[in-house]
Amino acid sequence: MARSKNQNQRSRSYDSDEHERGACEWCEYALVITLATILLIGVSALTVFWVFFYREGYAWADDIPEKQFNLHPTLMVAGFITFSGFSVLLYRICRCFRRIYVKLLHAIFHALAFPCIVIGFLAVLDYHNKKGINNFYSLHSWIGFVAMGLFGLQYAVGFFSFLLLLICNKGTAGFRASLVPVHAAFGVLTFVLGVAACLTGLTEKAIFTLGAERYSGLPDEGVIINAIGVASIAILAVVMYILSRDKFRTAASREHIRASVDL
Amino acid sequence: MARSKNQNQRSRSYDSDEHERGACEWCEYALVITLATILLIGVSALTVFWVFFYREGYAWADDIPEKQFNLHPTLMVAGFITFSGFSVLLYRICRCFRRIYVKLLHAIFHALAFPCIVIGFLAVLDYHNKKGINNFYSLHSWIGFVAMGLFGLQYAVGFFSFLLLLICNKGTAGFRASLVPVHAAFGVLTFVLGVAACLTGLTEKAIFTLGAERYSGLPDEGVIINAIGVASIAILAVVMYILSRDKFRTAASREHIRASVDL
Repeated sequence: MARSKNQNQRSRSYDSDEHERGACEWCEYALVITLATILLIGVSALTVFWVFFYREGYAWADDIPEKQFNLHPTLMVAGFITFSGFSVLLYRICRCFRRIYVKLLHAIFHALAFPCIVIGFLAVLDYHNKKGINNFYSLHSWIGFVAMGLFGLQYAVGFFSFLLLLICNKGTAGFRASLVPVHAAFGVLTFVLGVAACLTGLTEKAIFTLGAERYSGLPDEGVIINAIGVASIAILAVVMYILSRDKFRTAASREHIRASVDL
Repeated sequence: MARSKNQNQRSRSYDSDEHERGACEWCEYALVITLATILLIGVSALTVFWVFFYREGYAWADDIPEKQFNLHPTLMVAGFITFSGFSVLLYRICRCFRRIYVKLLHAIFHALAFPCIVIGFLAVLDYHNKKGINNFYSLHSWIGFVAMGLFGLQYAVGFFSFLLLLICNKGTAGFRASLVPVHAAFGVLTFVLGVAACLTGLTEKAIFTLGAERYSGLPDEGVIINAIGVASIAILAVVMYILSRDKFRTAASREHIRASVDL
């Protein structure tokens, strides 16, 4: 009788402990998702605002190549940061959906990023050719080139392995499971490279457009350009935080981690 | 008898499996450490080579402020990347040392980084003042400022909590344990900010020193500057890879991860 009472007490205290931890965890979860959403939408909104307010908007015409260039930062920020960021976050934080829906969401957001990156790249390539500027000389272009290559490779490998191979579900389960950590590691690297390309690109643009002297006076446009960079870094920090928190993982991937730690 | 044979077989196959995994693990461990060491020393060596070969070396004199500026990239790369990188790596990969020695090594390498960052910062501040250039206007300076602030804060908190508080070992064990993930997360953020500051700083320097037109022709000096940036990114990738591999953790921190996943 005494033992049963003791057990009951232990079980109750365990329950209340679980409940408290659960509430705290959900609170952190909601806060981080809200912050990430504001930042991810905010960074693209700020870029569009900058282009319309200071750089005269968009176009694809021979007589105004500068307006065509404006597509480059906007689409690259949208593709490499906003859409890719949402894709990474949704994959990690959608804990209640069926796995296949989460995968499809991940693929759809990357599919939205894909044309942004392609058109963003063509916009600057065509702008350079029209203005007679060399391509692929700067650190920014080198980083961006590797980021684009990795993005394309990751999309092809991910689509083939994690969606197409589901046709033969059982036979490919081992292969797919072994590919997950590689896909995840290169995915994070692609995201980091995207942010690095954004930061170096903003620095180039600020100096080329404003000029060293005007930029050093920190005009309003300089503050906006710097703010886009700061927002990109804040997004990287939030994404890395979410990826580092095991509590944000789905039950299946927690199991995977536990197994790999036990090895 | 049959059962004992069976047990023996199971135990042997487990052993051989363990052995094989162990060899593979050690091979990966050695490869990653070698690569990280080459990159960490290489990036500082390349910066020193660049300054001596293309930028006329170092000085701290009123008549040649450009030579004084050269201390800035060299010391910042040494402080934020080489010494900080070694400090992070040594903490994670020294599996056979006693914990206190690993902590001391971590503190010593950060202590080497400290004066580099302070003198590197003073060098550019004094250079700007001598040349009449504004301070803290660029994205590079904003990122660098936050990185320096975080570095100082992390050093103070780390030194106080993980070394000084050992005076009262038992009484502070819980506090210290709860601080470890926070210190680690902000440490990674500081490292990422250091690399981001390096990339934006190199972009600024290439455009300011070579000029947009010469840089677009990709002269040898442009290639060297880009290569320092590429090496910094490669270091970030290797460090993030090591941090993401649970196998590189010490037994104690694996236990910590297992417990947190089980929560």
